[in-house]
Amino acid sequence: MAHDTIFRVNSLLNGIQGFYMETINIGIIGFGTVGTGVAKILLSNSHLIEKRIGVRLHLKYIADIDLITDRGVNLNDGVLINDADTILNDPDIHIIVETVGGDTFAKNLLLKAIEKGKHIVTANKALLAKHGNMIFEQALNRKISIGYEASVGGCMPVIKTLRETLVGNKIQAMLGILNGTCNYILTKIAYEKSPFEAALEEAQKNGYAEADPTFDVEGIDTAHKLAILISIAYGMKINFNDIYVEGISNITPLDIEIAEQFGYRIKLLAISKYNGNAVEARVHPTMIPMSNLLSGVNGSLNAIAIQGDAVGNMALYGYGAGMMPTASAIISDIADIARDMISGAKIRVPALGFQNEHIKEIPVLPIDEVNTQYYIRFAAIDKPGVLSSISGILGNHHISIKSVHQKGQNQQGAVPVVMMTYRAKESNIQAALKEITALHIIERDPMLIRIEDNNQTI
Amino acid sequence: MAHDTIFRVNSLLNGIQGFYMETINIGIIGFGTVGTGVAKILLSNSHLIEKRIGVRLHLKYIADIDLITDRGVNLNDGVLINDADTILNDPDIHIIVETVGGDTFAKNLLLKAIEKGKHIVTANKALLAKHGNMIFEQALNRKISIGYEASVGGCMPVIKTLRETLVGNKIQAMLGILNGTCNYILTKIAYEKSPFEAALEEAQKNGYAEADPTFDVEGIDTAHKLAILISIAYGMKINFNDIYVEGISNITPLDIEIAEQFGYRIKLLAISKYNGNAVEARVHPTMIPMSNLLSGVNGSLNAIAIQGDAVGNMALYGYGAGMMPTASAIISDIADIARDMISGAKIRVPALGFQNEHIKEIPVLPIDEVNTQYYIRFAAIDKPGVLSSISGILGNHHISIKSVHQKGQNQQGAVPVVMMTYRAKESNIQAALKEITALHIIERDPMLIRIEDNNQTI
Repeated sequence: MAHDTIFRVNSLLNGIQGFYMETINIGIIGFGTVGTGVAKILLSNSHLIEKRIGVRLHLKYIADIDLITDRGVNLNDGVLINDADTILNDPDIHIIVETVGGDTFAKNLLLKAIEKGKHIVTANKALLAKHGNMIFEQALNRKISIGYEASVGGCMPVIKTLRETLVGNKIQAMLGILNGTCNYILTKIAYEKSPFEAALEEAQKNGYAEADPTFDVEGIDTAHKLAILISIAYGMKINFNDIYVEGISNITPLDIEIAEQFGYRIKLLAISKYNGNAVEARVHPTMIPMSNLLSGVNGSLNAIAIQGDAVGNMALYGYGAGMMPTASAIISDIADIARDMISGAKIRVPALGFQNEHIKEIPVLPIDEVNTQYYIRFAAIDKPGVLSSISGILGNHHISIKSVHQKGQNQQGAVPVVMMTYRAKESNIQAALKEITALHIIERDPMLIRIEDNNQTI
Repeated sequence: MAHDTIFRVNSLLNGIQGFYMETINIGIIGFGTVGTGVAKILLSNSHLIEKRIGVRLHLKYIADIDLITDRGVNLNDGVLINDADTILNDPDIHIIVETVGGDTFAKNLLLKAIEKGKHIVTANKALLAKHGNMIFEQALNRKISIGYEASVGGCMPVIKTLRETLVGNKIQAMLGILNGTCNYILTKIAYEKSPFEAALEEAQKNGYAEADPTFDVEGIDTAHKLAILISIAYGMKINFNDIYVEGISNITPLDIEIAEQFGYRIKLLAISKYNGNAVEARVHPTMIPMSNLLSGVNGSLNAIAIQGDAVGNMALYGYGAGMMPTASAIISDIADIARDMISGAKIRVPALGFQNEHIKEIPVLPIDEVNTQYYIRFAAIDKPGVLSSISGILGNHHISIKSVHQKGQNQQGAVPVVMMTYRAKESNIQAALKEITALHIIERDPMLIRIEDNNQTI
């Protein structure tokens, strides 16, 4: 409370005699990749940051249980400690940067930090997607700021854009490539025709994928991020469990090749749409036309296209992960909090960008009720009547076919039969596919990829 | 000052009893396209904005000398007035939105507003590029905020990104497509092979170009925007006159076609680079590889790629002009100021993103000293020895040729001979071209297009 009073007095003095300089003390908990990046920027660019924000950011402590000393950062004696409590209990620490990850230790850490009156910056999307509502509420009660720009889209300022830039817009839709691992793998498959397993292996070899890649390739990481984004866009409680999630592990080079022949690319997209009733929120491999700028976002890059009622379409691109891009986003959160502190502002921008009393519970539309276009690839026995059987069943389920393509002929085994549909209801598609798959002319489950084709260039 | 005191007290109360609600009164001066857009958002989305920022934005007046009543906006009686002074003199007006344009009336208007203690939001890049230093200084003296996000890149939050998101970064380079008119025309030439004049005419017919398009097509508008951006990126005084400016009116379908054959597109780019000495700041038609995302920015869209030492490369895309995208940016500035007011903050983020005492005069590198790659198209008489003469002169001026291409043969007239160079110094190129042009084998002045080819995807 002592510092608080000082800042409040500073704020009053500002009006009379200009800015009063003060040092803001930072404690980083977790000296892994991201923590190291934050330390690097605080040490190398501290003068530049001070010239910009008018206050010195001082890295007082980095706590890591492992006490690793060589991270390529020159720390003064006493900065690296192995005990997070020292940071939590130090009354001189103003801002705590949590780069521990996970959702048990980190959760307790953030709650303790709030209790101690420390502002918080974190990149922990898994934690916020699961426990964000509770953490934000606790923080609000104590007038604590929580910065989490780095949790979604790394260096892309998507949270700032939603909370501040688009403040005058009803957000109508968001389409995001939010996981660099998946985008790297899909790019590899597309450009090098490698099968999924080989592309994943190469991603792991090059440091773009974890040893256990499940979180990334099964879309869970993307869904965490989407949960956070929709809560900000629409002013709703974070609701992770209702988001439909499908990963990329079934995507084959054949599907990517066929998509390209039709002028599409396949990306793992986080999709949200909102017309005022239920929020559409889903993560799955998606075919997008090559005229859409998102289709050209390759490798480990991230991007998000946002449609607002005033702004029309806009998009952000950048590195969604990696030491320095993530650290850059964390520094922007630290600077925002520092600017608030020296100007006497508190909760200037609320955590979800809406005043707390206007945060609602908005239902997420079940995937069965979603309407979209579909690409369906059947493995069908090549004999007369196959198309008529398949299209008959689709028609019975109110699904209109836009185009049909059979890839080659084969007297013996199955051939790929590809259909693109007009907009149809997911439950109808699923019912039709169940019936079709039961036909003796169909081998294996069909491949289904949803299409986003709204003729927008971004 | 009365309101000021109220907000200061509110700010103190915030800490004790939560946010105190207050209405913030807006006066728009200029009821043209942009002013109309701002009014539309304030009227249609006011509840949404209030839920986000916690204070009501009330459109009290719109002043326009023409008193046009039918702009498709339903205004209450008494809102539309024909006298800007009513707004300036009303003690209840907190924020003035200037959408008058031009740099004489608008300049006096802003200075009067500052004198009266009103915060300001403007999209007037011409005014800021010429008089920004003085206006910002006056505003700072009175602790007045000036929002000008809409002045560069329309709905793209480039100013917020530079001042806030990239606060921890040394900005190394910026490449921007910042004029929708030019980009529309270049896209037309590229996709429809129309000559410049026809493309311009179509742009005018479709409302993408003014009746007098000089400001846009000659690159002046882009240079205004670049002047603002470099001042924020590097913390320097705005310095419009030193920026090198070259427009697109000489670009031919032939150059665009040849560029495409080599894997490049031609865009009017605002380019800045800074290594700590002089700032490179120039606007000219530029060849960029098709692998660069900027090459796919078509039509009236704007985009900017920014390279920072931490963030790597990032990019923003969106509509750079138009009623609603521009109005959306103005609303974001209004909201930022409103958030400052209700939280008691003053000059929370300085106008140029640097504390005033750290704004320096940084020299702009004269174009003669720039080093880059070049595309040069000569109209040469097709006879033996031509290439040797040209390349001999280039060699004498220390210019290395990367590739040479002759487009067809012609016994009678001149043929296009195209050369791509490695990096060379502009003064050397100009001296060599002067010598080459004087040769009797060369008809007409050569076409010179600078190349940005840094192998970055954004």
